[in-house]
Amino acid sequence: MIVHLKKSLTTSEVQTIADELKAIVITNPDKYVLITPSALKELSSKYTSVTEAVFPMSSDIQLASADYLKNKREVLLGKGVVIGGNTHHTAIIAGPCSVESEEQIESSAQLMQKLGISTLRAGCYKPRTSPYSFQGLGLEGLKLLAKMREKYKLNIITEVRDATHIEEVIEYADIIQIGAKSMYDHGILRRCGKTNKPILLKRGFGTTLQEFVQAAEFILSGGNENVILCERGIRTFETKTRFTLDLCGAAYLKEYTNLPVILDPSHAIGYAYGVPDLSKACMAMGVDGLLIEVHPNPKIALSDASQQLNHEQFSNLFTSLKNLANAIDRKIV
Amino acid sequence: MIVHLKKSLTTSEVQTIADELKAIVITNPDKYVLITPSALKELSSKYTSVTEAVFPMSSDIQLASADYLKNKREVLLGKGVVIGGNTHHTAIIAGPCSVESEEQIESSAQLMQKLGISTLRAGCYKPRTSPYSFQGLGLEGLKLLAKMREKYKLNIITEVRDATHIEEVIEYADIIQIGAKSMYDHGILRRCGKTNKPILLKRGFGTTLQEFVQAAEFILSGGNENVILCERGIRTFETKTRFTLDLCGAAYLKEYTNLPVILDPSHAIGYAYGVPDLSKACMAMGVDGLLIEVHPNPKIALSDASQQLNHEQFSNLFTSLKNLANAIDRKIV
Amino acid sequence: MIVHLKKSLTTSEVQTIADELKAIVITNPDKYVLITPSALKELSSKYTSVTEAVFPMSSDIQLASADYLKNKREVLLGKGVVIGGNTHHTAIIAGPCSVESEEQIESSAQLMQKLGISTLRAGCYKPRTSPYSFQGLGLEGLKLLAKMREKYKLNIITEVRDATHIEEVIEYADIIQIGAKSMYDHGILRRCGKTNKPILLKRGFGTTLQEFVQAAEFILSGGNENVILCERGIRTFETKTRFTLDLCGAAYLKEYTNLPVILDPSHAIGYAYGVPDLSKACMAMGVDGLLIEVHPNPKIALSDASQQLNHEQFSNLFTSLKNLANAIDRKIV
Amino acid sequence: MIVHLKKSLTTSEVQTIADELKAIVITNPDKYVLITPSALKELSSKYTSVTEAVFPMSSDIQLASADYLKNKREVLLGKGVVIGGNTHHTAIIAGPCSVESEEQIESSAQLMQKLGISTLRAGCYKPRTSPYSFQGLGLEGLKLLAKMREKYKLNIITEVRDATHIEEVIEYADIIQIGAKSMYDHGILRRCGKTNKPILLKRGFGTTLQEFVQAAEFILSGGNENVILCERGIRTFETKTRFTLDLCGAAYLKEYTNLPVILDPSHAIGYAYGVPDLSKACMAMGVDGLLIEVHPNPKIALSDASQQLNHEQFSNLFTSLKNLANAIDRKIV
Repeated sequence: MIVHLKKSLTTSEVQTIADELKAIVITNPDKYVLITPSALKELSSKYTSVTEAVFPMSSDIQLASADYLKNKREVLLGKGVVIGGNTHHTAIIAGPCSVESEEQIESSAQLMQKLGISTLRAGCYKPRTSPYSFQGLGLEGLKLLAKMREKYKLNIITEVRDATHIEEVIEYADIIQIGAKSMYDHGILRRCGKTNKPILLKRGFGTTLQEFVQAAEFILSGGNENVILCERGIRTFETKTRFTLDLCGAAYLKEYTNLPVILDPSHAIGYAYGVPDLSKACMAMGVDGLLIEVHPNPKIALSDASQQLNHEQFSNLFTSLKNLANAIDRKIV
Repeated sequence: MIVHLKKSLTTSEVQTIADELKAIVITNPDKYVLITPSALKELSSKYTSVTEAVFPMSSDIQLASADYLKNKREVLLGKGVVIGGNTHHTAIIAGPCSVESEEQIESSAQLMQKLGISTLRAGCYKPRTSPYSFQGLGLEGLKLLAKMREKYKLNIITEVRDATHIEEVIEYADIIQIGAKSMYDHGILRRCGKTNKPILLKRGFGTTLQEFVQAAEFILSGGNENVILCERGIRTFETKTRFTLDLCGAAYLKEYTNLPVILDPSHAIGYAYGVPDLSKACMAMGVDGLLIEVHPNPKIALSDASQQLNHEQFSNLFTSLKNLANAIDRKIV
Repeated sequence: MIVHLKKSLTTSEVQTIADELKAIVITNPDKYVLITPSALKELSSKYTSVTEAVFPMSSDIQLASADYLKNKREVLLGKGVVIGGNTHHTAIIAGPCSVESEEQIESSAQLMQKLGISTLRAGCYKPRTSPYSFQGLGLEGLKLLAKMREKYKLNIITEVRDATHIEEVIEYADIIQIGAKSMYDHGILRRCGKTNKPILLKRGFGTTLQEFVQAAEFILSGGNENVILCERGIRTFETKTRFTLDLCGAAYLKEYTNLPVILDPSHAIGYAYGVPDLSKACMAMGVDGLLIEVHPNPKIALSDASQQLNHEQFSNLFTSLKNLANAIDRKIV
Repeated sequence: MIVHLKKSLTTSEVQTIADELKAIVITNPDKYVLITPSALKELSSKYTSVTEAVFPMSSDIQLASADYLKNKREVLLGKGVVIGGNTHHTAIIAGPCSVESEEQIESSAQLMQKLGISTLRAGCYKPRTSPYSFQGLGLEGLKLLAKMREKYKLNIITEVRDATHIEEVIEYADIIQIGAKSMYDHGILRRCGKTNKPILLKRGFGTTLQEFVQAAEFILSGGNENVILCERGIRTFETKTRFTLDLCGAAYLKEYTNLPVILDPSHAIGYAYGVPDLSKACMAMGVDGLLIEVHPNPKIALSDASQQLNHEQFSNLFTSLKNLANAIDRKIV
C-alpha cells in the first residue's frame, strides 16, 4: 500500500507512522510517501486526518504501478531530451558494445552527431562470461566517453557491472545503465536510489516481469524517480537466435507500469541481420526508446561482433525509423 | 542434398537413383526433385549427365531453405489473394476463436466483408486441454463456414486437430491450419503433402525453429509447395502473458527459409489489451500475414475469451495497420 | 466436480442428470461416475437422494487427482506385473529405441529374459523430426515385437505416433505408449479411453504438469482407468543436455495425482554417460517405473544412438538399481 | 589453453610469456600456471624448454575442466570435513533460510549438533526480490552465526549478496556462498579468487552450464582452488514447482568438470513436501553434498516459509539419507 501523508507532519511523526506500518519513507517537496508491504490493504482510521491519499496494491509492484500513477512518468535523459509522459518521444540510443579506443569511440560519436542522435552508448566495464576475454577499458573508457560528451555535445549512457565501480559510473555518465546480469544487485540498486541521474534498468534474461519491476522498486523506493525499464531479450529454449525479444512483455510493461519502456533488439537477437526488422517492430509499438549497437567495423569488434550494425546499415535503419515514427505520430529524440 | 534430375529420365531410372541415394522423389512438370539425407554433401560423378542442379544442405532443412530458393515462394490463399514472392502483400486473416453458432459466425463474416478482408478464420475442432470444456462444433462448424464462404465470398481457414478428421477439413477449408499442438503429427503432415491446398503450419509452443521448419519439410517433400509458416508464441518462464511472441524467430525464418511467414499475436499474448501493439509491431517487420482473433462479444466467447478483440477494437486496429502498411510500402490483402 | 450416482438409476435418468450438469458419464460396475466442469462447486439438493458421493475439484484435474482417490491406482502391466497401489513395485522397462531387425530385437529380448525383466520397449512408428531420417519399421516392427512376446514371454510396450495407426498398436502391444509429441492428440487420447489396455502417457517436452495430467483426463474420462504418467524431460534453455529431467515435477505428480509415475532418464539427458546416475536418482525417489534405452550396439543404432546403453552398461546399472531398491524397501518387477 | 611453466623461471620471465600469450598467471608452490584464451590451440616451439605441460581446451572452461584434471578436486570445508577427490563423502549442510534471532539460530545449531552434522547454513544478507520484505539481519546475523560456530563447533556457510559486504562475509564465514542472483557478479567473483576460503558457487536460475562453470573460472583463475558448484534449480515454463532441479545438469558437471558438486533441493522445488524425495534422488546420484533448508517453525519463517522442513521432518530424512549412503558406499560428513 502507498500512503501519502501531509507535509505538515514532522519527520519524527512520519517515522513513527512508518515504523507502525513497517513502511519505507520517501520525502517529496509536497508530501511524504510511505510504502508498506503490499499485504496491507486497509489503513486504520486513526491515520485519516494526516493522510492525503491511499493506494492499496495487489503485489509488491507499487511505486512503478499504473494503479499508482495513471500517466507514464517523464524522464529527462539530459540536455533537454525528455521521454515518457505525453511527449510521444522515442529516444534512439546508439553506439558500440564497448569503448575500445579513442579513435573508435570518436568515430561513433561523429556518426551520432551527423545523424542528429543525442545519446551515445558504449560499455567500459564488460560483464563478460569468461575471465579470458576482453573485460573493457574501465575508468579509461569512462574518461574517453566524457571527452566525447564535451566535444560532440552528447548524452552518455554506460553500464555499471558490479558495486565496486558504481561511484565512477555515476560520476561520469549522464544515464546509468544496470545490465541484465546485475539487475538483482542490491548494492547497485540501492546506490542508484540515492542519485537523481536517470537509471536504465535492463531486465535479466532469466527474470520474470514481476521481478524486473520489483528491481525498479528498489530504486524508486530509494527516492530516485528517474527509472527506465529496458527489455533486451529473455533466455528460452530457442538457440538459433541469442535470446528472445519479449514484446508481449513490453506490451505488459506499457499497460501495467508507469515507467518509460526502452527496447534493445541488438542483444535480443544477437545477429545484425535481424536488428533492422526488430527495431522497426519496436518503433511501431510506440515504445519510449531503442538501444541499438553500431560499430565502425563490426568484424573487428572486441565484443558482440556478430550483432553490431555498421555505420551504413545503421544510417539506413535510422531513415526507416523516422518514416515509421511519422506514421504513428511519434518523434525521435 | 537436393538434386534436380532431367525430365528425360524414366520414372524407373529416377527410382533407381533415389534408392541408391536414399532419397525422396518429387515429380515436377519440368524436373524430378530428389531430396537425400542432408549428410550427403557430394554427388558421384556417375550422375553428372542426368543432373540439372545440386544443392548441398547444412541440415535437414532443405526444400524450405533460402539456400535452395533465394526468392520467397508465392502462395495463393484463394480467390486471387497471393502472398510471398515479390508481392509486398500482407494478408490480414481474422475471425473468432471458434465457430459457436450461425449467428455468431455470420456476424464475423459481415465484419470481414465490411472491412474488405478476404479471409475468415474460425475453429471447429478445438484442441482444448481439458475434456470438460467446449470442444468445438466439428463438422457442423465446417458447414457453417462453407455457408459463409458462399454468402460473403470469403476464403476460409480452419484448423485440423488430429488425423481422424483431416479429410473433412481438406474438403471444406480453403486453407488448412495445422495447430501448434498438432505440428509434429505425421498423420496430418503427410496427408497435407498430398493436397494442393495451402497449409498454414503453426509452430508448436515448445518447438525450436529447426524442428518447426523440418515439419514443413514433411509437407513440402510430399509434393505440396503451398506451405506458410506461422509463429504464434512460444512457452517461456514468463507467465504474465500467455506465451512469448518470438519476433527474433520470425526474423530468422524470413532470413533463412523460402516460405511466407505469418504471425499470430492473439494467441501469443493471450490478452486483448496487447494485441493492437503487437499487430503493429509485426506489420512493421514486413511479414506476409497476421492472424487476429475478433469476436462479436468476447466476454461470452466459448474459448479464448480474454484475447479476442471486439469489432470496434479490431476496426480501429485495421485502420492503423493500413497506415503502417503504407509507410513501409506494403499492401494489405 | 465428480459425482457418484447410485447404480439403481436407469441410464436415461443418469443421462438426464448428466445433461443438466454438462457432465461426462462413466458407467462402473457399482456406480455411475459423472464429471462436470470443475467450475461447478456445489450440487443442487434435488440430487441428494441419488448421490453417493461428491468431490468438488479445484481445477480440471479431476479423475486423476489425489483429492478424488487418496490411494494411488494399481495398474496391471500384463502377465502378473502390477505397479502402483501399495505394491512398492518399480517396473524396469528396457529395450532399444527402435525395432531395426529381427536379429537386433531378439538380442534385446534375450537380455531382458536373462536379467529377469518382464517388459520390453521398442518403437515401430518413430516420431522423427525429419522426413529424411529412418521412420521406423511400422507394422513389420509390431509383428517382430509380437514374436518376441511369444518366444520370450515378455510384455511389449510400443509407441503410437499418430491416429492413423492407433488400431494396429492397440492390437499388437500390451501397453500403449503415447509419445511426448503426440500427448495432445485427441484422436489418440479418445481412442485410448475406449480400450482397457494400460496406457503410458508421456509428458510433452513443452507441456506443463497441469496440461499433462489433463491429457490423462481425456483417457480416464473415456472409461480407461489404466493410465500411467511418464516424465521424460522438458525443454529448457540448457542445451548441453538434450532435455531437463523434471524430478520436481515427478515429486508433484506423486503428491497430487493418483496415477503411477514412471521416469525416462534416457530421453531426458540424451547421452549414455548420465543415464546410470539419473536412473539411480529416480529409483531412490521411489517411482513406479523406469524406462531405459539399451541397444546391442548403440553406435550403429538407427535412432537415438548417443543415449542408449550397451548390454554390459545396462546389466551393471540393473545390479545397482536392485541394491538401491532393497535399501528403500521396493521391489523391481 | 593451460600451460604449466617451470618454477625455475623468474617472475619477470613468466610475465613476459604471459603477455605474449595474453594469459593470466597463477603462481603455485611448484609451478606457474598460465591460462590463455581457449582459441589458442598450439604453443610455439620457442617455449618448449620452459614448459612442463600443455592442455589445449575446447572452450573457456579450462581450470575447471575434466580435461585438465582427471580427478575431482578435494575441498576442505573446515574442521577436518573434506569432500571431493576420492573421499566418497557427501556433506549434508542444513539450517534455516535466514538468521532471524539468536533463539532461532541456536535451535538450528543444536539440531545440527544432535544429528552430528558439521556445517550450518543461514542467510544474513537476503537477496529478496522486493524492497518491502525482510532483508536479513546483516552484520548482526554474521555475529550470531560466529557465536554458534564457537558454541557448537560448527562450520558456517552464509551468502554474500553483493560486493558491498563481501569483506564481512569473508571474515565471518567458513564457506562463502555466492547466491544464484549474484553468480555473474565480477566484484564478488574476483574478490573470492583472492581468499583461500572455500566458495560455494550457486548456478543462476537462468544460467547455462557453460556460463556457470565460466563463473567458477573467475575464482579459480584468481588463485583460489577451493570452488564447489551448486545446482539449485533453473527457471523453466513449469510453475507448479518454484524451479526445476536440473539433475541432467548435475550429471554433466560430474562428467565434465573437476569440481565438487552440491545440490540444493529446497530452493529447487520450493515446497517442503518434495524435499525428502529430491534429497534422496540427489544422494543416490553420488553427489558431494546437499544443502537443505530446515527451520524450528517453518510456518513463521521470515523468508522461504513454504520450503523449509521442520526438525522432525529433517531428522527423518537424515536417517533415510544415511541408509542410502550406505547402499551406494558413500559416507555423510
